[in-house]
Amino acid sequence: MIVVIGGGPAGRYAAMRLSGAGKKVRLVEKRSAGVGGQCLHQGCMTICALNDVARLMEQARGFQGLGILGPISEFSYKTLIHRMQETIRIIAGVLEQETVQAGVEIIHGSAEIQGSSLLIDGVETPADAIIIASGAHPKIPEISGCCLPGVYTAHTLLSMPDLPKKMVIIGSGVIAAEFAYIFRVFGSEVTILARSSLLRTFPDKLVHEARKDLAQVTIEEEVTVAGITGQNHVTGVIIRDKEGIREIPADVVLLAAGMVPNTGFISGITCDPNGALIVNDRMETSAPGVYAAGDVTGTGYLTPVARHQGRKAADAILGNSFEPEPVAVPQAIKLKHDLAYCRKPGNGSKGISIPGPAGPGTFWEVQNKRTGSSSIEFDENGDVMGLSEASPAASVAMAYLGWMMNSDIRIEEFDRFIEVHPSADGIPWLLKYLNGKRKS
Amino acid sequence: MIVVIGGGPAGRYAAMRLSGAGKKVRLVEKRSAGVGGQCLHQGCMTICALNDVARLMEQARGFQGLGILGPISEFSYKTLIHRMQETIRIIAGVLEQETVQAGVEIIHGSAEIQGSSLLIDGVETPADAIIIASGAHPKIPEISGCCLPGVYTAHTLLSMPDLPKKMVIIGSGVIAAEFAYIFRVFGSEVTILARSSLLRTFPDKLVHEARKDLAQVTIEEEVTVAGITGQNHVTGVIIRDKEGIREIPADVVLLAAGMVPNTGFISGITCDPNGALIVNDRMETSAPGVYAAGDVTGTGYLTPVARHQGRKAADAILGNSFEPEPVAVPQAIKLKHDLAYCRKPGNGSKGISIPGPAGPGTFWEVQNKRTGSSSIEFDENGDVMGLSEASPAASVAMAYLGWMMNSDIRIEEFDRFIEVHPSADGIPWLLKYLNGKRKS
Repeated sequence: MIVVIGGGPAGRYAAMRLSGAGKKVRLVEKRSAGVGGQCLHQGCMTICALNDVARLMEQARGFQGLGILGPISEFSYKTLIHRMQETIRIIAGVLEQETVQAGVEIIHGSAEIQGSSLLIDGVETPADAIIIASGAHPKIPEISGCCLPGVYTAHTLLSMPDLPKKMVIIGSGVIAAEFAYIFRVFGSEVTILARSSLLRTFPDKLVHEARKDLAQVTIEEEVTVAGITGQNHVTGVIIRDKEGIREIPADVVLLAAGMVPNTGFISGITCDPNGALIVNDRMETSAPGVYAAGDVTGTGYLTPVARHQGRKAADAILGNSFEPEPVAVPQAIKLKHDLAYCRKPGNGSKGISIPGPAGPGTFWEVQNKRTGSSSIEFDENGDVMGLSEASPAASVAMAYLGWMMNSDIRIEEFDRFIEVHPSADGIPWLLKYLNGKRKS
Repeated sequence: MIVVIGGGPAGRYAAMRLSGAGKKVRLVEKRSAGVGGQCLHQGCMTICALNDVARLMEQARGFQGLGILGPISEFSYKTLIHRMQETIRIIAGVLEQETVQAGVEIIHGSAEIQGSSLLIDGVETPADAIIIASGAHPKIPEISGCCLPGVYTAHTLLSMPDLPKKMVIIGSGVIAAEFAYIFRVFGSEVTILARSSLLRTFPDKLVHEARKDLAQVTIEEEVTVAGITGQNHVTGVIIRDKEGIREIPADVVLLAAGMVPNTGFISGITCDPNGALIVNDRMETSAPGVYAAGDVTGTGYLTPVARHQGRKAADAILGNSFEPEPVAVPQAIKLKHDLAYCRKPGNGSKGISIPGPAGPGTFWEVQNKRTGSSSIEFDENGDVMGLSEASPAASVAMAYLGWMMNSDIRIEEFDRFIEVHPSADGIPWLLKYLNGKRKS
């Protein structure tokens, strides 16, 4: 019997792979809403659902501005959240069914781990191997006022009863930017508070595009948050920057300042200083027979990385050989456009960039020059070191482009690329152009 | 001096490639609206522009049905067409500027070709080589009533003064289906008349999806059109099928029954029975020094194929070696979803198919089971023979997948594929699954 703790992307992938190879697998899910992890219940899919509505509303306003459509007369945030949760329940059911059909036994309960020994709902449970895939939760910063009503994290935000008037977001990464875009389009005044700068780890070109998408969001950079104010409910956030100390009014504060691995139920296994389980290149923890995968290992906080680690943990248990580690992980943020990129380690010293072509989702952005952009960074030899794109479906393209970078497919192969016309994806044109320059 | 006739995708690509290689190039454009060809002015881009609005309206109605949004109060078809033409003029200007900056001289005028000799606006013009890229126009069927007011082709449709009440479309290919979707969403009653069946050349799975997207369009299959009726304006279309003869009322008829190459200005060059210029594998016509590329050669009527041929004609003149011909050309139709496919010659005897994953553009379709689908056909060896997908951005994915098929990239490579989550593109999952089966 192999026991997997947590039914998010890492745990579910591992469990199904092990079961498919003939192993007896028990998956322990703590969440009463079922499998799917924060990815489904509090992360990727909720942002996707809200962003779909926000993009539509922003596009509709664009057509209204052109005199093509009249205004959308109403918007019910309450109904949106209710309908979204309905849909999430359906998806959780589908995932559960898929997992069970793959032969995995799902148990709803709580685990406790002490070194290599496992208790489920307090009962010691023998296991040939354990995979910990318990995920992570939002970090609560060490400032006053975090417990006030009106202060939320991405994990509690869906319980917010109404659309905020003034939302302040503490944090300036992917989650902060995505929620800022969504709530601004929904009608809230939104302020982002960045300790350093917006989307610090993103390529400059994409940060530039993100600033356009967030033009109506106030972005305060290089600020320190001193505390959250309020008596019975949050009323503001006190910040300090080079101009001094001031208070930004808020009726809702969203904490989006990073993630913390879920290890509260674990003892006797070595963690790193950030509280993440340390694993070796076979996903083994310091406890014999105990593996870990996904956010609990503190790497990336990305669903595809979690799945990749889940697969690797399963393969380690099965004695399978591993695929080579990807050199570059494609990733994206969804605002008005998808802002997607993939980079190899090291820096491309040269770059070229073009505005996004007119195509699906960008034709009507030609007049206001908001068709996005495509960029390539390359080194002295003309080898591609990084790709980035802002376009309506850039994340679809970037997955394939990332795969190309990880598979060492020669860019000369791109001479054969035949686009499906029209397309808002400009990177194939840049790669063909780069090819032409390499040849000449 | 090399003269290129026509500034559509084939001609412009050829002209810019030749100019980039140091040749003196003159491009003759007949259209007063400028370069871009029917692709920009009457084809791909106009459908893309209209489809963007139609998809938004259909999505907004979906949210209205869920109680999330109120209705969109107005829709002005006249303003839509006006704004679209504004945008097309901007794009034509950008293309013209790009062409001129690449060193190509653009002349607005009419060409006449007699064998290898060329007249521009009636003046004999010497040329070292000529590339004919004059495009094609919609076929007018040999039935009565085609000249009545209210009868349009894709080339004249934008002059239609108002939204039709009852539109009948003669034809059932890509253009017919795309306009049917658009005008149905805009509020017209639409009937498609198919001589055989809807989207006859498309994979069954995608035809199935198209029928869902066109659920509110009346599709009459295996019918013969006997004539168009009306005195001063079209009033209907007479059809004959196994149930007899009847008239379908119409205030607008759209002719979408195929294309005819534009060769009216050419004599002394061999054409095929359909009126297309015959070219050899170097894009040479029967007249020495005269090449042809794009729709005028009668192959495909697809912008990427036209570009590919334009490039090939330029390479033939430059003495460059050719890329291998693609075995499979990815293509797509845009309805509610992109319906995209790519097939190698021959048939996959086996197939697997999955519903589209919940992701951008499909999350809100989970409840009504309209998330699209992804399918693979493969042969006895497990080699991929065909891929098809219905999803919001399937055409972006299919371009990369087609490239993979044409480059003979081994599907084992797909084991390394890292998705950008969430994504509505299911094909990478199918390819990984197929890989797993091949290994075991």
